[in-house]
Amino acid sequence: MNRQLFVGPIIHSDPQGRLDVLQRAAILVENGKIINISENPKPGDINADYVRVLSAGQFLIPGFVDGHIHAAQFPNLGIGYNKCLLEWLETYTFPIEKKYADSAFAELVYEAVVKRTLTMGTTTACYFASLHTESSLILAKQAVKYGQRCLVGKVNMNHSRKDGYCESTKESIAGTTKMIKEIAELNSSLIMPVITPRFALSCDMELMTELGKLAKEMKVHVQTHISENLDEIEAVTTAYKEYPSYAAVYDAAGLLTNKTVLAHGIHLGDSELALLKSRGSAVIHCPSSNTCLRSGLCDVQRLKDRGLKIGLGTDISGGDSSCMLNVMRAALQVSYHLSILTPGYTPLNYKDVFHLATLGGATALAMQDEIGSFVPGKQFDALVIDLNGSNGPLDNLIEYTLENRLERLIHSGDDRNIVEVYVAGHRVK
Amino acid sequence: MNRQLFVGPIIHSDPQGRLDVLQRAAILVENGKIINISENPKPGDINADYVRVLSAGQFLIPGFVDGHIHAAQFPNLGIGYNKCLLEWLETYTFPIEKKYADSAFAELVYEAVVKRTLTMGTTTACYFASLHTESSLILAKQAVKYGQRCLVGKVNMNHSRKDGYCESTKESIAGTTKMIKEIAELNSSLIMPVITPRFALSCDMELMTELGKLAKEMKVHVQTHISENLDEIEAVTTAYKEYPSYAAVYDAAGLLTNKTVLAHGIHLGDSELALLKSRGSAVIHCPSSNTCLRSGLCDVQRLKDRGLKIGLGTDISGGDSSCMLNVMRAALQVSYHLSILTPGYTPLNYKDVFHLATLGGATALAMQDEIGSFVPGKQFDALVIDLNGSNGPLDNLIEYTLENRLERLIHSGDDRNIVEVYVAGHRVK
Ligand SMILES: [Zn+2]
Ligand SMILES: [Zn+2]
Repeated sequence: MNRQLFVGPIIHSDPQGRLDVLQRAAILVENGKIINISENPKPGDINADYVRVLSAGQFLIPGFVDGHIHAAQFPNLGIGYNKCLLEWLETYTFPIEKKYADSAFAELVYEAVVKRTLTMGTTTACYFASLHTESSLILAKQAVKYGQRCLVGKVNMNHSRKDGYCESTKESIAGTTKMIKEIAELNSSLIMPVITPRFALSCDMELMTELGKLAKEMKVHVQTHISENLDEIEAVTTAYKEYPSYAAVYDAAGLLTNKTVLAHGIHLGDSELALLKSRGSAVIHCPSSNTCLRSGLCDVQRLKDRGLKIGLGTDISGGDSSCMLNVMRAALQVSYHLSILTPGYTPLNYKDVFHLATLGGATALAMQDEIGSFVPGKQFDALVIDLNGSNGPLDNLIEYTLENRLERLIHSGDDRNIVEVYVAGHRVK
Repeated sequence: MNRQLFVGPIIHSDPQGRLDVLQRAAILVENGKIINISENPKPGDINADYVRVLSAGQFLIPGFVDGHIHAAQFPNLGIGYNKCLLEWLETYTFPIEKKYADSAFAELVYEAVVKRTLTMGTTTACYFASLHTESSLILAKQAVKYGQRCLVGKVNMNHSRKDGYCESTKESIAGTTKMIKEIAELNSSLIMPVITPRFALSCDMELMTELGKLAKEMKVHVQTHISENLDEIEAVTTAYKEYPSYAAVYDAAGLLTNKTVLAHGIHLGDSELALLKSRGSAVIHCPSSNTCLRSGLCDVQRLKDRGLKIGLGTDISGGDSSCMLNVMRAALQVSYHLSILTPGYTPLNYKDVFHLATLGGATALAMQDEIGSFVPGKQFDALVIDLNGSNGPLDNLIEYTLENRLERLIHSGDDRNIVEVYVAGHRVK
């Protein structure tokens, strides 16, 4: 048995999204799991094999949950923002994803992705890989190697394409089944499979229905895209005329479960929101991507009002940053702009986006009992934040409250202010 | 005489905003000034005391011009975004600016500001200090010490305030005159004074008129704020009923010259734009601040169409970053959002914001003959960019063109990718 004790200020969110700030607390961790949290501990109160007392100015927050990230698109980070979604997929995305037929390329990129996102404070990632089962498993193995908690999805696409970046229904199901089985054989508590139909334009109803069945049988997560771009929505509603909406297409296939995350959801109608809510499915807000690809300004307050579970995603490489701090900032910018444009609109604030990036994302992934905040029984996935230090982007010239420091981290900090990263009690940065 | 030679790829803008990319060039610098640029130089072509051949993957760009930055507000970077302009000034800004009555505090902060912005690649900054003449001169001295090119403005505010953060007209003029004289006595080619009425709500017409006269007599720059926030505009038009517009108030005071930069200009009317154009005054676009304080979405394409000179500013601490890369990104985000909201709108692209941050800003400051691009006769203010290196935020897993690398820098890079900074040929990072 391994007992660790972390002593210092902690900030996390409660399920209502309120900030919970403890000026000095002690978190006792046993084999990676939080056993006890005490406020104002006295020296010698608790025995542990390892005691980490934070330095002055440091504080602990939960690790970030990246609810939507395309590991395979990582090499395209920062390029290609001259196109909108459907053209962007053809010009930049499918050509790079095809390359993962080569396992060596997958190994090179996926190692870099896992290392990079851990450095950025992402302790849990919900990954899209590519069509290729072998390469998708390489991603899972890299996560095991570096100790990142994640969901890994081999992408499903059975619509025929000239460039050959597609598969038959049979191949798609076989590959997915193989992925689920082999991820189980990795025997890692950190890694889970996620069934990953790309989106309704890449799959037919037969494949999606098979995948929906598989998700229920195997009790695994589902992820896909929804309602990102107006041209996409028109193409979906044209291709699936017999269904009343985009969301209804996925629902007909049995893909909307309480372990389903849907990226974007910018333009969802009221009936679609009600459907998602009734199914317990979550929306992953990807503000950086939605802006870079000019998909739209997603009204997160509306989604919150409807009671949906909401997380945040980098959506690399539609999004231009691998750091959830930048995604939180992008979510604020979108929300600030909506408040400028909409009389009476209350924008999100730094506390709201912090919640979305931690407990909100955990809840979206139906993992709120395991991660997302510091509560006994949950895993110790945590970041040590330090705004001091000469190599970060911030200067500390006056006194700041703990709340101020969190606000500064979210608005103006970067990965240099994330000085330690823990997943299940293991230090991974 | 000191001759330096820089050999490698260079990217800069031409006056029309087009990207000029040289795959391999040699820039000869003599006493800080560019003497010659040759494409595809051969070894031994040119003699120099110092030769710097860029490493593979590195390239040179002009230094960034931050056209609007409040050095005095630097400690508030990253906090206070729960208020809009007029409330924000009272709650956060005036209280921190008052502290510069203390020279020791000024020394502490201004040293940090100059070092920080140089690290971020700002080779030229147009600074607002505070009301205090002595402290403003401390800022100028710090810029001399660390080798940053800048304009320094002691702020003018003669409207009476309860907290005492104001001055009489006489004090204001005396302090400004003293600042101009003492900056001249620093005898540095890098530092210039700038006359700095805060904005029309902080000064009366008498003071502004005196300052306008002083600007003409002394041939110095002018900077102020204009048309940032709807409440501010209403207050200005109410206070100055006899003038047809906000811009007309400044014009009546003689403050609109071809060496005037006006921060924000979000809500300027057509006649105001025509007035600014006829006076040769420039607008400094501060997208990060405009978003954080929810002031509005400035339509830069409209300002460009009217032929205005336009630069970019961090507007610390209304803006939440000291890095012009983040400001370029914020300008793209605002423009992308305008394009989402406006049918047929062409948003700015990375080349456009790069121009605004370099030659555009130089032109806004009427310094286009000295800085902003690599042209013989101009100063060598330059950044060496390197997207490789294990400690930056980017991974380089495939081959990128030079244009791709600039796009990646602007979208996804940070100061770690700015590995060397030169001002007038002196290495300052
Ligand atoms: Zn996506
Ligand atoms: Zn300002």
